[in-house]
Amino acid sequence: MVNTTKKDMNAPPTQIFEPRDPDFESKVRKSFGLQKVMSTLGIDLSSVRAGEVALRMTHDDAFTQQHGFIHAGVTTTALDSACAYAAFSLMPQDAAVLTVEFKTSLLAPAKGIEFHFCGQVLKPGKTLTYTQGYAWASDGPHRVLVASMTATIMALHGRSDLRL
Amino acid sequence: MVNTTKKDMNAPPTQIFEPRDPDFESKVRKSFGLQKVMSTLGIDLSSVRAGEVALRMTHDDAFTQQHGFIHAGVTTTALDSACAYAAFSLMPQDAAVLTVEFKTSLLAPAKGIEFHFCGQVLKPGKTLTYTQGYAWASDGPHRVLVASMTATIMALHGRSDLRL
Amino acid sequence: MVNTTKKDMNAPPTQIFEPRDPDFESKVRKSFGLQKVMSTLGIDLSSVRAGEVALRMTHDDAFTQQHGFIHAGVTTTALDSACAYAAFSLMPQDAAVLTVEFKTSLLAPAKGIEFHFCGQVLKPGKTLTYTQGYAWASDGPHRVLVASMTATIMALHGRSDLRL
Amino acid sequence: MVNTTKKDMNAPPTQIFEPRDPDFESKVRKSFGLQKVMSTLGIDLSSVRAGEVALRMTHDDAFTQQHGFIHAGVTTTALDSACAYAAFSLMPQDAAVLTVEFKTSLLAPAKGIEFHFCGQVLKPGKTLTYTQGYAWASDGPHRVLVASMTATIMALHGRSDLRL
Repeated sequence: MVNTTKKDMNAPPTQIFEPRDPDFESKVRKSFGLQKVMSTLGIDLSSVRAGEVALRMTHDDAFTQQHGFIHAGVTTTALDSACAYAAFSLMPQDAAVLTVEFKTSLLAPAKGIEFHFCGQVLKPGKTLTYTQGYAWASDGPHRVLVASMTATIMALHGRSDLRL
Repeated sequence: MVNTTKKDMNAPPTQIFEPRDPDFESKVRKSFGLQKVMSTLGIDLSSVRAGEVALRMTHDDAFTQQHGFIHAGVTTTALDSACAYAAFSLMPQDAAVLTVEFKTSLLAPAKGIEFHFCGQVLKPGKTLTYTQGYAWASDGPHRVLVASMTATIMALHGRSDLRL
Repeated sequence: MVNTTKKDMNAPPTQIFEPRDPDFESKVRKSFGLQKVMSTLGIDLSSVRAGEVALRMTHDDAFTQQHGFIHAGVTTTALDSACAYAAFSLMPQDAAVLTVEFKTSLLAPAKGIEFHFCGQVLKPGKTLTYTQGYAWASDGPHRVLVASMTATIMALHGRSDLRL
Repeated sequence: MVNTTKKDMNAPPTQIFEPRDPDFESKVRKSFGLQKVMSTLGIDLSSVRAGEVALRMTHDDAFTQQHGFIHAGVTTTALDSACAYAAFSLMPQDAAVLTVEFKTSLLAPAKGIEFHFCGQVLKPGKTLTYTQGYAWASDGPHRVLVASMTATIMALHGRSDLRL
C-alpha cells in the first residue's frame, strides 16, 4: 500500500514531462504570436517549458469590470492560453490545439499592478490533455492568488488548416 | 408522482421571475456601462429582462486566437457578463454582484460575422444565483451554437463601495 | 441578421437527432444494465431517446449526507450516467463511451421521495459530445430542480475491450 | 516585481491555515460519521488537518460502471466529501457546510485495489471556500492520479437545523 505522508498528499501532481516535439518552445512561441487577442490585451509570454507555460500582463483600465478590477473573462483568456499552450508543448509536431472546456474559480478580485498566469499539464494524452492553471495579482513585493482554472485541451491530428 | 412527457423533460427550466428591484433594467444598463472591457471588446447590450440578459458583438480580428476565430476567453467574457447581469437583474437594490466561478464548454469554433450571448437565471437566491448561458455565431440567416456556460453569481450586501 | 425574439433566445438548444445506430435503445439499455452501481443505488432507466436519457430513483437513507439529503455525489452519479448514455445513444455501433469531465451545480438540497434525472445532448461529435443534465426532486404533485450538470463525453473507437 | 522561478510557479498554492474552531477535527469526524453514504460506499476518513482532509476506499464491484471501473460519480462522492470537510475544518463552530458546485476531471479509469482522495482548501472565506481535490488509484507499491476536482463550498451561519 502507498504510504502517504502530509507532504505526499499535499504534493501537487507535478511531473517532469518528455516533449515529443524537440522544437516545442519555438512552436509555442510562434502560435502564441498568432493570437492577436494576446497583443490586444497586452498579455506576454514569460516562459515556456515542457508541460508548463507562464504569461504576464500589466493592469489596463480598458479591460476592467464595473468595480475597476480586471474582468474575469480577461483573466480567463490568459489562463486558457497558458493551459492550452502547456498542453500544446507536449503534443507532436503535426497536432493542432483546441480548448474543449474550462472552469475558472474567481478566488479574489483581480486587483493589482501586474498579473501572472501559469498553466500546467496534469495528465497528457494522445487526444485529450488535462491541465490546471493559476493566476496571481502582484502589487510589488508579494502576490495574491486571484483565480484558478482546470481546462481540457484537445489535439487535432491531420488538420493542416489548423496547424498552429 | 410527476408525469413527465417528452416535452416536459426536454423543457429547459426557464421561469418567469419577479424582480425585487423595479428599476432593474436601468440598474443593469448603468453597471454594464461601467464595464470598460465591454466597449473595448465591442460588446453591446441587446436586451434586459428580469432574469435574462442578451449581449451581442461583431467579429473583430483584434480578439482572435491563432486560427482566426474569436478567442474562447472573449466569448467567456461576454457570457460571464450576460450571466452575471441576468442574476443582478433579480437582486435587491442594495446588492453588488460578483462572479464566483463559471465553466465554459467550447462547442464549435467562434467563427462568424456576429455573435449573440444569452444569460439566464436557473435558480435565484439571497446569496447565490445559479445561471446558464449560450453563445451563437451568426453568419447571415442562420446561427450556430458555439459555447455554453454555467456560472455561479454572488450578491454582496452592504458593500456600498461595490454597489454597481 | 438573426431576429431574436424572447422565445427564440430563451429556447434551449434542443434538437432532433438522427441516431447512427438504429439499435441505440437496446445498446443503451444493455450497457446501463452492466453498471452495477445503478442497481446498488436503486437508479432505474425511465426512457431512452436519441440524444436524451431519463433516469429515476427513490429516496434511500443509505445514500444520504449529514443533513439527511441525498449526497451530491449520488445525484452526480445519476446525472453522469444520464448524460453519458444520452451521448452514447448517438454514437455508432463500434464506439465505447467514457466521461471526460463534468460540473454539477447543487441548486437545492436533494430532499424528496423520488428523483428524476434527464441528460440531453447539446452538441454531438465524432470524438466529443457535449451534454447537459437536470435533476428534480419530487414529493408528490410537484417537482423542484435540485441540480444541473454539463458533461463532456468521449467516444472511443476500435476498443473492443471497452465496447459496452 | 515578483521573481518567479520554476519551483515558484510550479508550487501549488498550499498554505498553512489557522483553524477558527480548535475542535475542528472532532467536528469533522462527527459530521463525516453522519454521512450514511460514506459507510454504504465503504469510504473511510484517513486524516483530518486544518484545511485538508484525506479519505480512502477499497474497490468493490457493487460501485462499478459498465467496464468494471469505479463509477465517476462514486469517485466524485468521495472527492466532494474530502473537499467539503477540508473547508468545514476551517469554519467557525456555528457554521454548517454545503457544496455549491464542483467539477470533476476524469483523468484515467478508476481501476485499482485501493483509492485515495485528498481535499485541500485553496482559499478560505467567510461565506465561500474554494477547494481542490485529487483522487489516486493504488495497486500496491505505486499510485496513479485518476481524477481531480475543484469545488466551491459554502458556510451557512445561524442554521442550527443544519449544524453538522
